[in-house]
Amino acid sequence: MRSNMVSVLTKAELQRLRSLREKKHREELGLFVVEGEKVVSELIATRFPLLEVYATDAWQPAEKPGPETKFVRVSAGEMERASHFPTPSAVLALGQIIPARLDAEDLTRGLTLALDGVQDAGNVGTLVRIADWFGFARVVLSNDCADLFHQKTINASMGSFARVKAHRIDLATTLDGLAGKVPILGCVLDGTSVYELQPVRDAVVVIGSEGRGLSEAVARYVTQRITIPRFGGAESLNAAVAAGIVCAQLRR
Amino acid sequence: MRSNMVSVLTKAELQRLRSLREKKHREELGLFVVEGEKVVSELIATRFPLLEVYATDAWQPAEKPGPETKFVRVSAGEMERASHFPTPSAVLALGQIIPARLDAEDLTRGLTLALDGVQDAGNVGTLVRIADWFGFARVVLSNDCADLFHQKTINASMGSFARVKAHRIDLATTLDGLAGKVPILGCVLDGTSVYELQPVRDAVVVIGSEGRGLSEAVARYVTQRITIPRFGGAESLNAAVAAGIVCAQLRR
Repeated sequence: MRSNMVSVLTKAELQRLRSLREKKHREELGLFVVEGEKVVSELIATRFPLLEVYATDAWQPAEKPGPETKFVRVSAGEMERASHFPTPSAVLALGQIIPARLDAEDLTRGLTLALDGVQDAGNVGTLVRIADWFGFARVVLSNDCADLFHQKTINASMGSFARVKAHRIDLATTLDGLAGKVPILGCVLDGTSVYELQPVRDAVVVIGSEGRGLSEAVARYVTQRITIPRFGGAESLNAAVAAGIVCAQLRR
Repeated sequence: MRSNMVSVLTKAELQRLRSLREKKHREELGLFVVEGEKVVSELIATRFPLLEVYATDAWQPAEKPGPETKFVRVSAGEMERASHFPTPSAVLALGQIIPARLDAEDLTRGLTLALDGVQDAGNVGTLVRIADWFGFARVVLSNDCADLFHQKTINASMGSFARVKAHRIDLATTLDGLAGKVPILGCVLDGTSVYELQPVRDAVVVIGSEGRGLSEAVARYVTQRITIPRFGGAESLNAAVAAGIVCAQLRR
């Protein structure tokens, strides 16, 4: 059995997998790579449609990919050549980027976490996970956010990536169209205390980048300016920590 | 002027600076290295006692180190050899690790953030920053936490590292001595809702590692079991995000 599964990847196949470490190529091909036993197992468990899974013999998961996924056993040497990391894990999966449809009107219903220029991929992943935990309907990302399909984003989301609807949009233009239709909450340094925030059913919560906060283009559409009161010396909170505190308050 | 400041580092000096990337050597020598224009400027601004600062001509800070700090201009080549990073910044500082005294009784006064096996240096730094924002009196770390003097920790703390009193302790033994003297709060999956938490003046808030939560040795001393209610699909929250939500509730 085992020997039947061994396959030698062609040079072109290896090159395609490796090329996907760059956003440009992910966008061109509509494909992304994710590596790691934990995250791939999570994607399989949530029935995320993976196109291909490459694994060494060291990968013996509780659940193998379904019949819709091409499953290929590779040697450790091949994995080293395909992997995006200097120390590869035992499994690498290939997924398809399927852009989800979003009407601007959708943002008037349910809770939306909107990321404005969050450039750290780990932070974007953690924010997607927060949206998932608090049952937000969706995440929208401004065009200057880190890529959703960066491996760091996927790994930091801890599987939430496969559950949360996420859309890359022109954030300022979209918020412009929402004026008066839904509250738009944003964290600023001189707003109303987060402790006064009342739970709401529909809202857009905008989180800015850690370095520079909300962009001017986006800040002008914020209808509820919120501040997390400070009791000590730190200049700021991590963007994901601030988002967690605001989301928790909205779900009180 | 400039030429007077140029100094050639000896091989032994370079070796000492480089050796400090390892915890073992930091502990042996009682020294740590921190690199980056932002973080070094923050340390200078907060009057953190730096022993030595090495900078290339590219470093032209608003505020130079005080007379108690040895300040040395080095060439870009020397910086490359001294730096812990493949792409060094323009400045590298050397600080002294001065263990702060802690009596177990101190933990009965004010708010303490206790980290139980938080192994990610970035998370430890973010947690120190949260403690700083919410005006906690101190942070205590179990011996299996990431090193406080790891550059990743220092950088993620965004300067809070220089303000917050932090102590590495035998956490279980310390908590044992505190039984009945101060509430010990811990995040678990089946506790009381965080929304029911009342602000308190004195408490120890224990944060576990993301993978395995609180250790058994520590969990038995928790007197208030707290849960952040989940509304969606995520299996867990990032440790720092969870800590931020609990700390924010304690400061309501």
